[in-house]
Amino acid sequence: MDFLYRGLFVVLCVSHSYASLQPGNWNTCENGEFVSTRTNTSSQVMALRTEMTLKKIGAYIVPSEDFHMSEFVSGYDQRRAFISGFDGSMGTAVITATHAALWTRGKYFLQAETQLGCDWILMREREPGVPTIEEWLGEQLKEQTLKKVGACPYFFGNSAWQQHSMALEQQGLRIEPVLPDLVDKIWTDDRPEFPDTVINPYPLKYAGKSWQDKVGEVRQEMEKRDADALIVTMLDETAWLFNMRATDIRGFVNDPFFYSLAIVRPNSISLYIKNKDIKLTAAPKDPESDVNMKEHLNTRADGSCPKTANKLCVTVKEYSYDTFIMELDALARNASVKRIWLSYFCNYAVYNMIDEDKIFVDNTPVAMLKTQKNDVEVQGMTNCHIRDAAALAIFASKLEKGVKAGEEWTELSASKELTRLRSLQDLNRGDSFASISSSGSNAAIIHYFPNNQTDRRITADETYLIDSGGQYLDGTTDVTRTFLWREPTSFEKECYTRVLMGQINLAMAIWTKGLFGREIDAWARQPLFDIGLTYKHGTGHGIGHYLSVHEGPGRISNYHAKFEWDVPLAEHMFYSDEPGYYEDGKFGIRLENIVYVKKVETKYSMKGVTMLGMETVTLFPYETHLIDYTIMSEKQISWLNDYNAMTLEKVGKLLKEQDAMDAYKWIEKRTKKVVISGAATLLVSNCILYSLMLVDLLW
Amino acid sequence: MDFLYRGLFVVLCVSHSYASLQPGNWNTCENGEFVSTRTNTSSQVMALRTEMTLKKIGAYIVPSEDFHMSEFVSGYDQRRAFISGFDGSMGTAVITATHAALWTRGKYFLQAETQLGCDWILMREREPGVPTIEEWLGEQLKEQTLKKVGACPYFFGNSAWQQHSMALEQQGLRIEPVLPDLVDKIWTDDRPEFPDTVINPYPLKYAGKSWQDKVGEVRQEMEKRDADALIVTMLDETAWLFNMRATDIRGFVNDPFFYSLAIVRPNSISLYIKNKDIKLTAAPKDPESDVNMKEHLNTRADGSCPKTANKLCVTVKEYSYDTFIMELDALARNASVKRIWLSYFCNYAVYNMIDEDKIFVDNTPVAMLKTQKNDVEVQGMTNCHIRDAAALAIFASKLEKGVKAGEEWTELSASKELTRLRSLQDLNRGDSFASISSSGSNAAIIHYFPNNQTDRRITADETYLIDSGGQYLDGTTDVTRTFLWREPTSFEKECYTRVLMGQINLAMAIWTKGLFGREIDAWARQPLFDIGLTYKHGTGHGIGHYLSVHEGPGRISNYHAKFEWDVPLAEHMFYSDEPGYYEDGKFGIRLENIVYVKKVETKYSMKGVTMLGMETVTLFPYETHLIDYTIMSEKQISWLNDYNAMTLEKVGKLLKEQDAMDAYKWIEKRTKKVVISGAATLLVSNCILYSLMLVDLLW
Repeated sequence: MDFLYRGLFVVLCVSHSYASLQPGNWNTCENGEFVSTRTNTSSQVMALRTEMTLKKIGAYIVPSEDFHMSEFVSGYDQRRAFISGFDGSMGTAVITATHAALWTRGKYFLQAETQLGCDWILMREREPGVPTIEEWLGEQLKEQTLKKVGACPYFFGNSAWQQHSMALEQQGLRIEPVLPDLVDKIWTDDRPEFPDTVINPYPLKYAGKSWQDKVGEVRQEMEKRDADALIVTMLDETAWLFNMRATDIRGFVNDPFFYSLAIVRPNSISLYIKNKDIKLTAAPKDPESDVNMKEHLNTRADGSCPKTANKLCVTVKEYSYDTFIMELDALARNASVKRIWLSYFCNYAVYNMIDEDKIFVDNTPVAMLKTQKNDVEVQGMTNCHIRDAAALAIFASKLEKGVKAGEEWTELSASKELTRLRSLQDLNRGDSFASISSSGSNAAIIHYFPNNQTDRRITADETYLIDSGGQYLDGTTDVTRTFLWREPTSFEKECYTRVLMGQINLAMAIWTKGLFGREIDAWARQPLFDIGLTYKHGTGHGIGHYLSVHEGPGRISNYHAKFEWDVPLAEHMFYSDEPGYYEDGKFGIRLENIVYVKKVETKYSMKGVTMLGMETVTLFPYETHLIDYTIMSEKQISWLNDYNAMTLEKVGKLLKEQDAMDAYKWIEKRTKKVVISGAATLLVSNCILYSLMLVDLLW
Repeated sequence: MDFLYRGLFVVLCVSHSYASLQPGNWNTCENGEFVSTRTNTSSQVMALRTEMTLKKIGAYIVPSEDFHMSEFVSGYDQRRAFISGFDGSMGTAVITATHAALWTRGKYFLQAETQLGCDWILMREREPGVPTIEEWLGEQLKEQTLKKVGACPYFFGNSAWQQHSMALEQQGLRIEPVLPDLVDKIWTDDRPEFPDTVINPYPLKYAGKSWQDKVGEVRQEMEKRDADALIVTMLDETAWLFNMRATDIRGFVNDPFFYSLAIVRPNSISLYIKNKDIKLTAAPKDPESDVNMKEHLNTRADGSCPKTANKLCVTVKEYSYDTFIMELDALARNASVKRIWLSYFCNYAVYNMIDEDKIFVDNTPVAMLKTQKNDVEVQGMTNCHIRDAAALAIFASKLEKGVKAGEEWTELSASKELTRLRSLQDLNRGDSFASISSSGSNAAIIHYFPNNQTDRRITADETYLIDSGGQYLDGTTDVTRTFLWREPTSFEKECYTRVLMGQINLAMAIWTKGLFGREIDAWARQPLFDIGLTYKHGTGHGIGHYLSVHEGPGRISNYHAKFEWDVPLAEHMFYSDEPGYYEDGKFGIRLENIVYVKKVETKYSMKGVTMLGMETVTLFPYETHLIDYTIMSEKQISWLNDYNAMTLEKVGKLLKEQDAMDAYKWIEKRTKKVVISGAATLLVSNCILYSLMLVDLLW
């Protein structure tokens, strides 16, 4: 994480006048006020403007993405964070000769306010009155002579590029591809190295399927869709397809990827990696990997395939943006190649190399096969979640005891301790992402990560939210719980309970196969909606198997309504189930479990209709004193009782084996059966008041 | 309705061999079996094939739509019904030299099976293994020399045309615009006349806003979006915008429209109607209309505007497809016209007249203003639903008494009686659509309309479903109830109850403004999903105010997931709330109310977040002996009690005024308060069984 803050230092902000243009929507620093968390980016912005003038462009767009359209990019690729100071995972920076503005979504508003350089305008996407990038540029460049808007085609998805292009055209402006990227030109000092970590072949006993079988299935899908070539540019896709893992992405997330690209054809497979000659023969670093890459891929030491190979072999080539683009050009010009399969997430430069009539765009077969986990992967996900819960229980019981005893715990120290405890669990390979360890008002910042400036003490007076996860050889975890070690206010209790009710609603949901996540997202929001509240983030994201903590293409989110890559929820997919509620400046509550989508048996059935449901694989108890059982339905309470019983059985057993009796007792206390021991009925005028008397006792 | 069946007669079906191509998906007549409901379309198809040969085209596509992209078209425009025999509102017929096939959706499968000509293949859209039109044509025309696929550009929406065009190209085929339409060429005998009914100016006291004010608001929206011209081609839009009604569309639906087109510009308004010279000065037919069209529109007798007009005036021109297209051509060539606003529902011919760079496509401001009803319209909708419920109560009580007494009631005679009873209510202007009056297995045909061949007796042994509505000067209604005058089986009772629970779920729903109907549709399905059931239609459609019974652009439907014209649910919109369950060949249950979307007060609120909810304006009771209260939540029962109290108060009062005491008592019996009079709790092993003892008594 530390490289992210290397270039950032505390500044004295100066006032400026943009706020008057759109009061309430734009965030500015107070005149002369010392804002310790903000970044001085004026030298970066000034350097960029110099390059813009040389290129004769009136504005430059700096997106979040890397060449691979990764959601989380390595430090080397954090161009937008470098230029703006804001290091959330989503956001687009736009710089003109006189202004600099950053567009981001609801869940990042507070973070952006905290981090953005003081001379930046925060554009709150989807809020009323906030212009789009293009509308703003139309206004900004109206009186300017330089009407071209520059952008590097390597770092935009094709559809994003097209959208920018069309929308700018409507403003009388034009997008101009700029190569090399201008941020790359100015970002010379203190830039992290291009990642280049050891690649470990991933054992079959964890992967569940050999890369040869995966390639076979991918080729079958290619044949079905008449594709002569498949371009694989997403890093989780190459890692999954070839059963290899590394540690190239380290920062907000620890995605076990290696920078790579691939082309699959009916009779050949090419893989592009950095420093291939070293990596092919290097000894694997992971103790569970017992062959080197050369052996794993049946490749010669220079990456070429033996001519007489009777086994499937991957040709390994050197990774470079420019040479890959040139190879695509050759492929596209090859008359025998009629149809090239691209993902929606290919960058514009890749897309642009291929004639429109040869392009076939859809989620790649790699993405679709990967998202529906095989039996070994499903078992691995289930198993690692139990070990992960054990680590979290040891952590939570220790933290509670410590905080109540007045020990000095902070967001950072707690996060560090949790990382240490996870590392003690079998097969752990580090955290899956930097823990969102957030106390009190920091917990209202949805994707907050603590740093030395923001680090806050954890006390019994404030909510403490910990959103964390681990990478394990047999799977990836992501779990959130919220704690409050005092009696809650009735509002806090109601919020916690309704967040839980929403989570349970989704966990219990049954629906017809074919629905998209966006079509069931509202089930999780209903308990909050009923009292006028909601959360400004999706309810669930996909999750990989020892891969990305955010895995596409499916999602459970109403924001996702119109994305062409969205796919229906299907069996063997894993998603998070994470409703929340955030009270700006005060507290944040989020409860996150991972769920597994599976076919369910129902009382009746209809011909041709398959019913799907979810099984929750995260087994971790809730804070019982924060739950108001009287507003829950019997069905929700029944689900909770089953869940608690399962948690005690599986996680409790492991804790006993690990001799972690404090944690065991901590879990035991929270998994007592909730019993409706009596009921009284009261009839009042035109409505029914039904009061439940609930007793929280051990059954 | 009768013209629809004019050309259709009973046939002896002959076998054919297509079924072997795709067994299970294609419907064919049994060899030699006498199928009384099917249509012999072989002479039509043969005549069409002759025209196809002359035009050198290998296939011809006949869609459902008219020039205006109406969902329900007049008899004159029922080209697809004429050629195929299937007269449901959605479906596309495709004819090649050797085969004829019809694509339609789930809710029409049974109807299509019943009606389609015997030599037609039924293509069940979205079912596994069923090819798309283009895939099928690719296969069918593979060996043929004629590779062109003909279609008339007047009867395809622009995006449908583009989609056909692209998908055919992928099959190596090409779409060919054919003018005039080939069905128009062959359909000479027994064709209904082009509709040409009297146009009645619609009084301000019902419209709530003058056409001048509406034009003013439309122009404001045009200015906001920089549009120099707005093309209005939807028939409900011209009717709403100019405050005029007629009876041009009579058939499945009685949409009070007149065939018309309009062009709104900043300084002129043109309206195209049939036989303008007669209609402008004709006396209105509706007793509530007190001016003629000329006076209403401030127009001279020839439709021209007085040069010195100080009042807004509409220039009225003669309606003709070809002249309208030519006028668009002139408009598009006018250099001062920079941006022309088209609806998503313009036909391809209209779209094609205008240069791509001048086109601005979005829902028209007419559509968007129309869908959010003004206060007078809201009050009118509320009022007419009470009168409509009174008519339905008189009908239902009479029918129940009659059926139980062994009287001879059939679907058609019941439907006719209901029409008569509605007509006795104040301001009624006929039915809003042909009643779906369906008994027993016919009720499983979702959009069934009875005819002489299918008419079935209504008995106490079978479910009877009546989906009907009225047009009233102050609004449009659409209501469905299902009856069963015997003790239900436990399955029937559970289905009825869960359909009701779904309807209540939606009626009680609260959500954040900005959600689309597709995002809350699943709430209505949840009670059915839980036991493995669903319904193959949307949950809700918009409804007009003395306009269409199906009004766009919004909908509450998960089928609607990807339509670009879909709009979020917003205040002042009216939708239907109509879950159902259909057991093929046995019974059908549907419960339909109309709901009004409005802002709701909630316990808490969030800055910038508006919560929306629904108010049910249909007030009609349910069949209490079909409800299993023990599976309903207290909240649902409480909603039902409130609803029943309101129904008795409002509809009961009117029935008393109308001296309809049988109906009053019928309603009274069904609106008794449901009381949870006691409760017992039983704890069983790991789950909670909570049994409600329910007493259905008058409070």
